[in-house]
Amino acid sequence: MLGGAGLLSARPSAAETLAVPAWMKAPGTHMSAYGQPSKYESDVQRVVGGTPNVVGNGVSFTPHHRLHGTITPNSLHFERHHSGVPDIDPDQHRLLIHGAVRRPLTFTVDALLRYPTVTRIQFLECAGNSGGNLAPQPSQAPCGVIHGLMSCSEWTGVPLAILMDEAGVDRDAGWALAEGGDAAAMSRSVPLAKLMDDAMIALYQNGERLRPENGYPMRLFLPGYEGNMNVKWLRRLKVVTAPTMTRDETSHYTDVLLNGKALILTYPMEVKSVITSPSTGLSMQGAGLYEITGLAWSGLGRIARVEVSADGGRSWADAALNEPVLSKSFTRFRMPWRWDGGPAVLMSRAIDETGAVQPTRASIVAERGERQNYHNNGIQAWSVAPSGEVGNVYA
Amino acid sequence: MLGGAGLLSARPSAAETLAVPAWMKAPGTHMSAYGQPSKYESDVQRVVGGTPNVVGNGVSFTPHHRLHGTITPNSLHFERHHSGVPDIDPDQHRLLIHGAVRRPLTFTVDALLRYPTVTRIQFLECAGNSGGNLAPQPSQAPCGVIHGLMSCSEWTGVPLAILMDEAGVDRDAGWALAEGGDAAAMSRSVPLAKLMDDAMIALYQNGERLRPENGYPMRLFLPGYEGNMNVKWLRRLKVVTAPTMTRDETSHYTDVLLNGKALILTYPMEVKSVITSPSTGLSMQGAGLYEITGLAWSGLGRIARVEVSADGGRSWADAALNEPVLSKSFTRFRMPWRWDGGPAVLMSRAIDETGAVQPTRASIVAERGERQNYHNNGIQAWSVAPSGEVGNVYA
Repeated sequence: MLGGAGLLSARPSAAETLAVPAWMKAPGTHMSAYGQPSKYESDVQRVVGGTPNVVGNGVSFTPHHRLHGTITPNSLHFERHHSGVPDIDPDQHRLLIHGAVRRPLTFTVDALLRYPTVTRIQFLECAGNSGGNLAPQPSQAPCGVIHGLMSCSEWTGVPLAILMDEAGVDRDAGWALAEGGDAAAMSRSVPLAKLMDDAMIALYQNGERLRPENGYPMRLFLPGYEGNMNVKWLRRLKVVTAPTMTRDETSHYTDVLLNGKALILTYPMEVKSVITSPSTGLSMQGAGLYEITGLAWSGLGRIARVEVSADGGRSWADAALNEPVLSKSFTRFRMPWRWDGGPAVLMSRAIDETGAVQPTRASIVAERGERQNYHNNGIQAWSVAPSGEVGNVYA
Repeated sequence: MLGGAGLLSARPSAAETLAVPAWMKAPGTHMSAYGQPSKYESDVQRVVGGTPNVVGNGVSFTPHHRLHGTITPNSLHFERHHSGVPDIDPDQHRLLIHGAVRRPLTFTVDALLRYPTVTRIQFLECAGNSGGNLAPQPSQAPCGVIHGLMSCSEWTGVPLAILMDEAGVDRDAGWALAEGGDAAAMSRSVPLAKLMDDAMIALYQNGERLRPENGYPMRLFLPGYEGNMNVKWLRRLKVVTAPTMTRDETSHYTDVLLNGKALILTYPMEVKSVITSPSTGLSMQGAGLYEITGLAWSGLGRIARVEVSADGGRSWADAALNEPVLSKSFTRFRMPWRWDGGPAVLMSRAIDETGAVQPTRASIVAERGERQNYHNNGIQAWSVAPSGEVGNVYA
């Protein structure tokens, strides 16, 4: 849809010279030991939601409508804590592997830092991300609040299979309990098959050691699985023969269906995409050429295709996928779009390498109703009004 | 070289229970709008070198011996400024494209933010990185100081070819002058062919807008080219018919050869690798199994192979390369190593997809002597003493 020179000509202005600005007339500031963003970007923050003064309640959202690319800066990675962020002394922290193992083992952080490592760029998505979009009326919050409980990082850590082999795990046991070192002792049951497959003990995030709010000094990382399975501040893995049915996998993180039954122990975050620009929180600057861009991901593997519609789903075209397209990672997609200034409805629909297609919101509501909150991977629709305002709509 | 369970058994200790630490007995802290590292990691900083109180002098180094993976956090990206960090108001900043073009154009930041974008993970290396290793005696500074003028980020921005086409560039002109908006007006000559190939106007780094010290609100990014070609705070590109011979490409950033001639306008940073652990700044914790790991990169394309030696270059073995191996990007390599507690010399040697092999320091010194400072991609050797101390040696 992009053309040559003439297409973009409305935006830049012709000029032959530039004024010399104030900041070229005197030396600037010194170097710094640990840099921070420009003061002009100080409003690019996590939005803290829920009841922020009650420890253990609430969340903070990644402002995706203000970001670009696929990596989420550590300072803006989403947060969900069940009893606040513990202040852990790494020299005192221990990881215990016990239960159905030949030899229970305790690891210090320093010991783990000597182990073989692996590095992967992968997303993390809270099971409750986009849950608000199952409510009867669409919220007009910014895109990064509606869909901000997801982030993507380069994780480096120790493949868990090495530690489990060293402990001599009973491979027939089937399950493990993962327990966090926060005051909630947040706990989840994890299939042993996942722990022996691509699970890691994450020690570094985007190059540096984990941040406190992301599990410092170590977290469990289970690529593609719902956020709170990736237990932060990990202190214990107990190998057991059945799910432990902890509070956080029974009273929370279950999907109640319309027929009264509940889906529990539902792990992969399935194929999904969101247009991050244009989106709520941004506004159009008049008719003309825009780039429609967003993120697509699947907990089951690579993204195969993303289709974009600018007419509410009547017609679709394939978006360009930014390389490399990695497994269980954010994939940035792009589509040039000439806005004629009239009303429009933008949608994206992702397909992953297993052939799974992102479902409509209507199909999810038909199965589960509008009262539950988890695993909403339904198609997002943004309305564009002639005024330039962008809205969240159920199309 | 890695074996099964028994190999690692010396490190973890057997235990059945864990004490309940203080931080599990009371709720932790609240969520935050823009997170920061753990207080226990506050010594992981850029090391400011040179004459830090003289604006325009000095550098700051990425502490690679304390990091892992391939992405460098923005807060720890290396710095080199020629007149300090300007405090630029993005609403007032302009980019002018002029000279041998049909239509000179001026762009605001907001205008550029609407253009088509591309996202790539690529390294940036100062021409002077590792220059100290050409001195007659090896420095015993930490690895991140000897080799800390290199970093790797996910860059997102506007492909420059789109803007040049819009301005109607005269493709026969051959060159452009790129000028920065700092008080030094730091300027370099860039071949037009590079600008029309994979150059971008970078607006985002690792997901968020550029940091001030990395060119906020925009920088030129020339994948694989020496650092200061990637002009920060970019305000002007003038299309011209020959190199401008600016101060920063004549009095600096030239390689004086032993025969008295000088290499100038030398752009690509060629194939190179550095072992980041073990390295100076770290120490061994007794004989046993370690992971040798480091970074390899080439300004000419992808890394094809990295060989590692633990006996000062007498024998070599192929290291594992972390996927994905990307063009003009850091590639993390790894090799398990059983240290017997005796003296050892560790080296790595990278080969890129063009077949170029990382040279020895001796071959570089033979050609250029020990008095110059730029483009040192020689093999790094670390000595390991029986005491566990790691040293920088010319092997």
